Amino acid sequence: MSVVSLRWATDHLELLDQRALPGETRWIHCKSVDDAVEAIRTMVVRGAPALALAAGYGLVLAAMEGEDLTNARARLAAARPTAVNLAWMLDRLAPLHTTEALLKAVQAEHAADLVINRQMGEHGADTLPDGGIYTHCNTGALATAGHGTALGVIRTLHTRGRDVHVYAGETRPWLQGARLTSWECLQEGIPCTLVADSAAGALMGEGRVQSVIVGCDRVAKNGDVANKIGTRNLAILAHFHDIPFYVAMPFSTLDRSCPAGASIPIEQRPSDEITHIAGRAIAPEGVHAANPAFDITPARLVTAFITEHGVIKPPFGEWPTVDGGA
Amino acid sequence: MSVVSLRWATDHLELLDQRALPGETRWIHCKSVDDAVEAIRTMVVRGAPALALAAGYGLVLAAMEGEDLTNARARLAAARPTAVNLAWMLDRLAPLHTTEALLKAVQAEHAADLVINRQMGEHGADTLPDGGIYTHCNTGALATAGHGTALGVIRTLHTRGRDVHVYAGETRPWLQGARLTSWECLQEGIPCTLVADSAAGALMGEGRVQSVIVGCDRVAKNGDVANKIGTRNLAILAHFHDIPFYVAMPFSTLDRSCPAGASIPIEQRPSDEITHIAGRAIAPEGVHAANPAFDITPARLVTAFITEHGVIKPPFGEWPTVDGGA
Repeated sequence: MSVVSLRWATDHLELLDQRALPGETRWIHCKSVDDAVEAIRTMVVRGAPALALAAGYGLVLAAMEGEDLTNARARLAAARPTAVNLAWMLDRLAPLHTTEALLKAVQAEHAADLVINRQMGEHGADTLPDGGIYTHCNTGALATAGHGTALGVIRTLHTRGRDVHVYAGETRPWLQGARLTSWECLQEGIPCTLVADSAAGALMGEGRVQSVIVGCDRVAKNGDVANKIGTRNLAILAHFHDIPFYVAMPFSTLDRSCPAGASIPIEQRPSDEITHIAGRAIAPEGVHAANPAFDITPARLVTAFITEHGVIKPPFGEWPTVDGGA
Repeated sequence: MSVVSLRWATDHLELLDQRALPGETRWIHCKSVDDAVEAIRTMVVRGAPALALAAGYGLVLAAMEGEDLTNARARLAAARPTAVNLAWMLDRLAPLHTTEALLKAVQAEHAADLVINRQMGEHGADTLPDGGIYTHCNTGALATAGHGTALGVIRTLHTRGRDVHVYAGETRPWLQGARLTSWECLQEGIPCTLVADSAAGALMGEGRVQSVIVGCDRVAKNGDVANKIGTRNLAILAHFHDIPFYVAMPFSTLDRSCPAGASIPIEQRPSDEITHIAGRAIAPEGVHAANPAFDITPARLVTAFITEHGVIKPPFGEWPTVDGGA
């Protein structure tokens, strides 16, 4: 595991500033829960599993400061409302009140996330066909404790020596595909072609894509998936072209309290993320821009979910509740 | 007509540098056929009808220089291989050999393009429903002699006082939607929301889009459409959501010599258009990027073609050949 995006340093949380990648490797030091909330909100750290760990460490910082933990949990949960892993982590930590107990629990979750990702990688690699794999956003080591979810599956395929070629959608507006996924692939020698999000249909039409795999930020009980804006486009395009569409889903992303996608809150982010790139205006002054950070993919468009417990299909009612799951 | 993108100035061609918009209004002066070829290739001017006019004036410049016109036509046609309007214009001009005759013919085409766009606008406005209209790239006054093709239909709808709201896809990599379409809408007070290309499926799923209208760079005899990369995505998304998908098509864009989309050459543009934005790297050094400028939308996904002669559906075999058409 060469890429690390967050680490605990004796008495504070260190986050790799993913906004500055790949140009710059800069670490942000969070020494208070306020620092952690701000780092989560402003996307220093992103990716559902990494967000959960950052929030967990944020709660440790709150305990160290003697802050009210109920209040701290609410503030951390509100920093990014769509990814359920974050709320799930905070729920799991709710019974704990001492710094020591909280830190121990978060560090255990941190270690477990890596194990879970490797398990997902194995199950996914048993499932996906060789050939072109289209993926979206970044779901790699940077988005998790290591290895990754959807990109973790690709990593495992590559380690097995399978013949795969990644098509990384650049993922506007934050360009996680361009900045992070292509960077992780380069680091590991995984064949990768970066494309504009709008090229997905053309690639599929040309027969260059044999499967699509994405991560998820929250999955409803019926199997509807909230994930990075553009995921719904890809699912529909894959369906049209008869290409299997997989979602890598750690069980922590399954929200059993949520019946369907329509109940999932969609975070609307600032419009200047659309009108500006790297601080430079790309649209005229005064234009109105909409910037939903996530969209909903209907369960029926998902070929299968790759989880740490195996490959499953919705609805999830019969599946055993994972230990501690909501 | 407030926005002009190209004009003939006594003895040379002036092109509004669309790469610099909306931040800067800069005119490029083309005084030779070399200048015109370079401006076309580097996207100073873009949009199928505007490209045709720029190529026409480029041939006038060649005649003024005493260049071999056959050679000049070949060089102009090769500058952007996908848009057929450009080749169509050069074919029309092939019988003419004097500067005076060429200039007169191109100026007549220039005037005719505006008339054609207004006719398309009327037919389109008779056809499109009220509500949200999703469009892609820029097909407005900047892409034509004025008024526009797909955006011309929207302009006519707005002029008629109809209740429309434009969703402009930003159109990576060149961001014509962000830079040009939202700018044209702002200038005319047409309600417009700019979005990332990947948000189209979410907007459609939320019921905010009642129709999609795009332009085209070449239409095959069977009705397959070559247009800006991302058009195929939109057609498939509209089909999935049962939303009508219209193509604004001047007859000059219909290539009767081309049986189907598979025969249309797709221009592959430099990868740094994907890996860089405004000169700044957004992807790691050494990453491979693919940058097809166009894609093919199958005819069956097109609800109807809006032309200057009315609203039609493929196949086009029975339709009367337009005067001078290839």
